[in-house]
Amino acid sequence: MATIEFWYEFASTYSYPAAWRIERLSQAARVKLVWRPLLLGPLFNRQQGMTDSPFNVVEVKGRYMWRDMERVCQAEMLPFRRPSAFPRRSLLALRLALVGAHRGWIANFSRAVYAANFGQDRDIGDPAVLAALVKEVGGDPVADLDEADTDAIKAELRDNVAEAEAKGIFGAPSFYIPNAKAEGGELFWGNDRLEQAVAWAGAH
Amino acid sequence: MATIEFWYEFASTYSYPAAWRIERLSQAARVKLVWRPLLLGPLFNRQQGMTDSPFNVVEVKGRYMWRDMERVCQAEMLPFRRPSAFPRRSLLALRLALVGAHRGWIANFSRAVYAANFGQDRDIGDPAVLAALVKEVGGDPVADLDEADTDAIKAELRDNVAEAEAKGIFGAPSFYIPNAKAEGGELFWGNDRLEQAVAWAGAH
Repeated sequence: MATIEFWYEFASTYSYPAAWRIERLSQAARVKLVWRPLLLGPLFNRQQGMTDSPFNVVEVKGRYMWRDMERVCQAEMLPFRRPSAFPRRSLLALRLALVGAHRGWIANFSRAVYAANFGQDRDIGDPAVLAALVKEVGGDPVADLDEADTDAIKAELRDNVAEAEAKGIFGAPSFYIPNAKAEGGELFWGNDRLEQAVAWAGAH
Repeated sequence: MATIEFWYEFASTYSYPAAWRIERLSQAARVKLVWRPLLLGPLFNRQQGMTDSPFNVVEVKGRYMWRDMERVCQAEMLPFRRPSAFPRRSLLALRLALVGAHRGWIANFSRAVYAANFGQDRDIGDPAVLAALVKEVGGDPVADLDEADTDAIKAELRDNVAEAEAKGIFGAPSFYIPNAKAEGGELFWGNDRLEQAVAWAGAH
């Protein structure tokens, strides 16, 4: 069965619609979906010397992106409210997503974090907000937040970032289709490449 | 009749497929198409402090873009060869496009310039190459290249850049749909937003 890796970061705006679309698209194409959280800050910094979101650094791009997000979310019937703070701290949420990968609730949790940040303007950097979301998706807030703080989970997130960089990833959402027969794979970047990425996975 | 403005620059890779797709899409939606050449260099410099293409500045982005262009052009059955020089000087070609707007051959000329640069690896900064393209689309190479060098045409291109900036444009291809009833309009950026932009123009 073909596999598609979904590389995402909770601070990434366009990863929100992608996270809500990818499951039905990959299921329809009979493609196995793997959720791969990553922290973009270190990548942006190493590759482009950036210390803030490009949408904050280049004002005219940010203005366009927020309007475009309104349109994209409207077309997908996803609730959207421009967050009162951007980008929000995503580190703890990303570590919790990795805990969720071990526990079986990473997909529901990731969608819930996006809806909280970009649909309801809630602070996904706040452990109390995240604890509530963990509970919502059937996790154990106390035990899972403790586990998110372990060296094993921290190392897993660092490894994800290194793997993303090795795969040529430079932004989110990214979709990576490993080549089943050889080294390497095919990379697609952006919510608007999701259909092509899934089609590629299904055909190769 | 609704109008869509197509803002493009000959050095812009993704403007190539857009230039070849936009006429049939806008005709099918009964939307009036206006070709608006612009020079991106001054915009990139003023808005983002860049002095080269972002695809050259950030190597990992460039590597991805060239592979993506291969895929996009293949899907559209457009010939593609990675140019041996990038970005090529586009100033004279853009001024000639404005001459073509007065003479009625801007659309054919613009598509021919893109095909030369990204399909055949020809130097579109070379006046001899451009003269041949002008001839191909029914223009007068000598008179039209002379006119491209006049103050009137130079001012027209500068005015286009200023108008693009006022409309919030920061890259190419961009599609702008003026609001028929009020100030302002709707902006879409990127070849992958072309369908949405045409649909917006048709519906508003």
